[in-house]
Amino acid sequence: MPAKQYSENHTVPYYEGDVTYRMTMSMLINVLMLCSDHQNAKLGVAQQDLIDRYGLGWVVTQYSIKIKRLPRVDDTIKVTTRGTSYNRFFAYREFWMHDEQGNELVKVDSIWVLMDEKARKIREIPESIIEPYQSEKVRRVPRLPRPERIAEDAESISKKYQVRASDIDFNGHVNNAHYLEWMTDALSLKFLISHTPVQINIRFENEVKYGSWVMSTVLVDSEDNDKIKTVHEIISNDTLSCSATFLWQKNDVKGNEDK
Amino acid sequence: MPAKQYSENHTVPYYEGDVTYRMTMSMLINVLMLCSDHQNAKLGVAQQDLIDRYGLGWVVTQYSIKIKRLPRVDDTIKVTTRGTSYNRFFAYREFWMHDEQGNELVKVDSIWVLMDEKARKIREIPESIIEPYQSEKVRRVPRLPRPERIAEDAESISKKYQVRASDIDFNGHVNNAHYLEWMTDALSLKFLISHTPVQINIRFENEVKYGSWVMSTVLVDSEDNDKIKTVHEIISNDTLSCSATFLWQKNDVKGNEDK
Repeated sequence: MPAKQYSENHTVPYYEGDVTYRMTMSMLINVLMLCSDHQNAKLGVAQQDLIDRYGLGWVVTQYSIKIKRLPRVDDTIKVTTRGTSYNRFFAYREFWMHDEQGNELVKVDSIWVLMDEKARKIREIPESIIEPYQSEKVRRVPRLPRPERIAEDAESISKKYQVRASDIDFNGHVNNAHYLEWMTDALSLKFLISHTPVQINIRFENEVKYGSWVMSTVLVDSEDNDKIKTVHEIISNDTLSCSATFLWQKNDVKGNEDK
Repeated sequence: MPAKQYSENHTVPYYEGDVTYRMTMSMLINVLMLCSDHQNAKLGVAQQDLIDRYGLGWVVTQYSIKIKRLPRVDDTIKVTTRGTSYNRFFAYREFWMHDEQGNELVKVDSIWVLMDEKARKIREIPESIIEPYQSEKVRRVPRLPRPERIAEDAESISKKYQVRASDIDFNGHVNNAHYLEWMTDALSLKFLISHTPVQINIRFENEVKYGSWVMSTVLVDSEDNDKIKTVHEIISNDTLSCSATFLWQKNDVKGNEDK
């Protein structure tokens, strides 16, 4: 029996777009999370229920994001997800975004763990929680590419941010999407306008709490075949919170990122 | 002939809510703006068309926001707007949010001007642009209450923010909603969790650009009849960009803001 799939449509409002009318990476993540939340609820294992009943909550540890074309403001996209496979500690979830003609825009692979909300420790995934997804039980879930690290002597650029009340979710942790905002904001507006991300590998290491300061550091790597690589680190209290590698494509002269 | 009314539904996703699951003030503003954008487009006077054809764009100068109950995450609300009246330079637009039972949640009065996009100067409102709204031509549009200012010797709290790439809209100015984020973030998380805004008067004075630093200052006023007043100023380059007065109500013990 294949894993259960869930789809919903989403129309991108202007405030989910950036200065070039393309959906921001942080809103893209939000919309994916919304889709998986809705599948969870539909299958009777809503995030809030898991917390209330077991004291457990799903947490993403890694995303691998492939972007063929970024959704644009006013586009209606179809978001699809399924909990494809799992083992004792890890669950592998896939996401897709399609345009109205059925063309694939974005494909996302993600790895999740179940976290004890109080102890903040990873727990085994109980059958009762995973069963509704009809996920395949496997020995090993797919390994997603690890983001690179920035060498200490590299010529990187850093910006500091204080975690805002609006950055945190109901259990006091920074919502994942905000890491993407800190990462992209460390790049110049000029760079952001003239480039489009095509591949992002991101890994969450340690949680950041309200009021903390974070340092967003980026290394812009040399150009190679029209692709530019940026390596990102979010550090808080001398601890790595999140790292990512982005591959970017230069937009053509008219600012149209479509190939 | 009364002014044309336009309504649309909106379901609040988790990422438009705060730590208490209530819609954030900045998302509330975004959703109102989206509704007026859609009315503009429906009436053949979309913001982008005005810019392309006349070099003019609508800009809000003042909001007066009355909140009976804030929309909550997962709520579906009905957003309604009309361009009620106008004179030579000012247009008065009203907004409402209703719950699914038809109860009024939020009422907003707003004052708009038409700005020359290049010169950044206010222009007279041409008949051709205002005619589709069936707005009433009046001598004076309603005067909205002016926010208070913070006395120089007041015991205020300030936080500094650098304008991010994600704060600005397609023409390079800070999206109005972000002022609300800077204003509320200057308050403590504890305050934000235990209080609900019931009335906000906000006035935009000067635009802020990408890369600038802004100082968000707040004065928390003494309690009076269960209502707390906060006075806010956003200052950039020694110039007042935006000021606001908020009235807040203490939430009851269970954190339920409903009366």
